[in-house]
Amino acid sequence: MTSAVHHIATDVLLPWPDLDRRHGPWPEGVGVHVWDGVTPGSEPAEDVLARIGLWVMPYAVPDAVRLLPRLPNLRAVQSLSAGVEKLLPQLPAGVALHNGRGLHDASTAEHALGLILAAQRDLPQWVADQAAGRWEPHFTRSLADCRVTIVGYGSIGAALEQRLLACEAHVVRVARRARPEQDVHAVAELPKLLPHTDIVVLVLPENPGTVGLFGAEELAALPDGALVVNVGRGRTLDTDALLDEPSAGRLRAALDVPDPEPLPADHPLRHAPGVLLTPHVAGGSAAFRPRAERLIVEQVRRFAAGRPLLHPFPRA
Amino acid sequence: MTSAVHHIATDVLLPWPDLDRRHGPWPEGVGVHVWDGVTPGSEPAEDVLARIGLWVMPYAVPDAVRLLPRLPNLRAVQSLSAGVEKLLPQLPAGVALHNGRGLHDASTAEHALGLILAAQRDLPQWVADQAAGRWEPHFTRSLADCRVTIVGYGSIGAALEQRLLACEAHVVRVARRARPEQDVHAVAELPKLLPHTDIVVLVLPENPGTVGLFGAEELAALPDGALVVNVGRGRTLDTDALLDEPSAGRLRAALDVPDPEPLPADHPLRHAPGVLLTPHVAGGSAAFRPRAERLIVEQVRRFAAGRPLLHPFPRA
Repeated sequence: MTSAVHHIATDVLLPWPDLDRRHGPWPEGVGVHVWDGVTPGSEPAEDVLARIGLWVMPYAVPDAVRLLPRLPNLRAVQSLSAGVEKLLPQLPAGVALHNGRGLHDASTAEHALGLILAAQRDLPQWVADQAAGRWEPHFTRSLADCRVTIVGYGSIGAALEQRLLACEAHVVRVARRARPEQDVHAVAELPKLLPHTDIVVLVLPENPGTVGLFGAEELAALPDGALVVNVGRGRTLDTDALLDEPSAGRLRAALDVPDPEPLPADHPLRHAPGVLLTPHVAGGSAAFRPRAERLIVEQVRRFAAGRPLLHPFPRA
Repeated sequence: MTSAVHHIATDVLLPWPDLDRRHGPWPEGVGVHVWDGVTPGSEPAEDVLARIGLWVMPYAVPDAVRLLPRLPNLRAVQSLSAGVEKLLPQLPAGVALHNGRGLHDASTAEHALGLILAAQRDLPQWVADQAAGRWEPHFTRSLADCRVTIVGYGSIGAALEQRLLACEAHVVRVARRARPEQDVHAVAELPKLLPHTDIVVLVLPENPGTVGLFGAEELAALPDGALVVNVGRGRTLDTDALLDEPSAGRLRAALDVPDPEPLPADHPLRHAPGVLLTPHVAGGSAAFRPRAERLIVEQVRRFAAGRPLLHPFPRA
C-alpha cells in the first residue's frame, strides 16, 4: 500500500499558472497543479493533494505551510527563498528541502547597491527636501573609491561585488571560513579588516553560528562615518549595539532586515539618525520572477525524469 | 610692453591648497596661488593677479567670474565642470577654455544609478514608511533585465553603461549624431527606440541643439510606466510636457536637473506623482575631488612646460 501510494505521487504543485506557455510544454506523465497560497478556497481537492510529490511553495507566504499535513505523499519541497531557517523545522521527516539559492542574487544585490547609493548620496535628505520645497545642494560621500567589506560572501555577495567593482569601489570578501583560493577571508580576520572599511555589507543566513555575529566589538572596530548594510537576516546584527553607535552619530546604517522583524511602529531604529530602513524587500523585485520560473521548470523536468533536483538544502 | 607683460604671466591660481603634498612638488618656475572663491577678502593682491596665466576656477562658485576683469594676463581658464554653457559668454576673447570632461563621470554615473535604483525599488516610499511606522512590503520593479536608453552617450554615458551592465540591464546608446562603429544611434532614431525602452537617461549638455530635445513627442513614445532620468541639463527635457505625462500617472521621472533651476519651492514638479528630485548634486560627491586634483596637477605641469592643456573647449 505504501509503495502504491508513493507510486501515484507523480504530480507537482506550483505557485503560478501557465509556465509552459513561456517555457515550453511540461514533461509527459506529470500532472501540474497550481495553488497561490492566498486565494481563499483555492486549495486543490484531497485526491489531487494525495498525488503531489513535489511542492513549489508560494513565495513569501509563510502561512502556506498549513498545506503540509494535507500532502501525504510529498517527497520534496522547493522553497523560492534562499533563507529557509523558519521552514526547516516545520517540514516532516523524509521530505527533501530545496532552497532558492541564486534566485535572489540579482534582486538582492541591486537592492543592497541601491541602499548603499541612497546612504552615500543622501537620498533620504533629498526626498525630504523635495516635499518641503527646499533647494539646498551640498557635497556628499560617494561609492567610488570606497572600501567595501562583504561579510557572508556567496552567490549574492558575488553579484554585489560585480556591481560594486563597476562603481569603482574596492571589495574585500569575508565568509565564516576562509577560502584562500578565492581570496575570501575568515570572519576571525574582521578585527583587522574593519578599521579599513568604509562600508560593510552583511549577507549572512540565520543559523546558530551567525546570530549576533556582528556585534558591539565589530561595530566599534569600524571607522567614524562607516556604513553598515544588512540584506541577510536581521538577527546576525546586534540591534542594541547598533542603536548605541548610530544614535551617537558615529556610524550609519541601511537595513533591509531588522531585528525584530517586522519592525514595530514605535521601534527606535525608525528615528535613529543616519539609519535607512526598507521592509525586507531586497529579494522581492521583478528580477525574481523570470529567474524563479526558469528554476521551477528545470526542477519539474528533473522530478519527472527521476533525476536529482538542484539546490538540496541539508537537513539537520 | 605687451610681450613683457605676457612673459611674467607664469603663475597659476588654484582653488585648493597643498596639492603638492599629495601629488609631488610643483614644476620649477611656476608660482602657485590659491583662491577658493568664497572666503571674503581672500583674493590675491593685484601684483599676483597680474602674474596669473592659468586660472583653475573654484568648483560650483558661479560668482567667482567676478575675478576675470582683474586677471589682465590670463591665457587659459580651467573649469572643473563638464558643462560650461554659462561661463562661455563671460570669458574675454583670447582666453582659452578647458572643461572638466571626465572629472564627474564616476560621480554623475553613480548618482544616475542611485536615482534609477531608488525609482525602480520604491525607495521614496520606504523612506516615508520608515518615519510613519509602517511595515508594508510589496514587490517592486527591478533594474535587472530593463532596457535602458542613454541619450547623450559620451564619457559619463560610458561610465553609466558599465554600471548598468553589471546590474544585468540592457543598454542602447544614443547621441546627436550616429557613430555606427561604436554602436551609437542618432537621436533621429529615438521614435523607433523609445517604445522598447524601460528607462531613458538624458546626459545631454545644454546648447541650441539640445534645448527641448526630449519633448512631448519623445515622452509619448515611451511605454506606460517608463522612467525618465535627467542628469545632464534641465532645459534639454520639456518640463511642461513631462508634467502632463506623470501627473496622468503614465510615466515616472527622476531628475537631478530641473527646469527652472533652482526649482522654486512651489513648483508642481515637487508634488507630481512618480517624480523624484535631487538638487543638481550628481557631480558633487567625494568621487570628484581626487579626480579633479589629478587633472589640476597635470594641467599645471603642462602649463609650466608650455605643452597644450587637456580638454580644450571650442569657443564659437
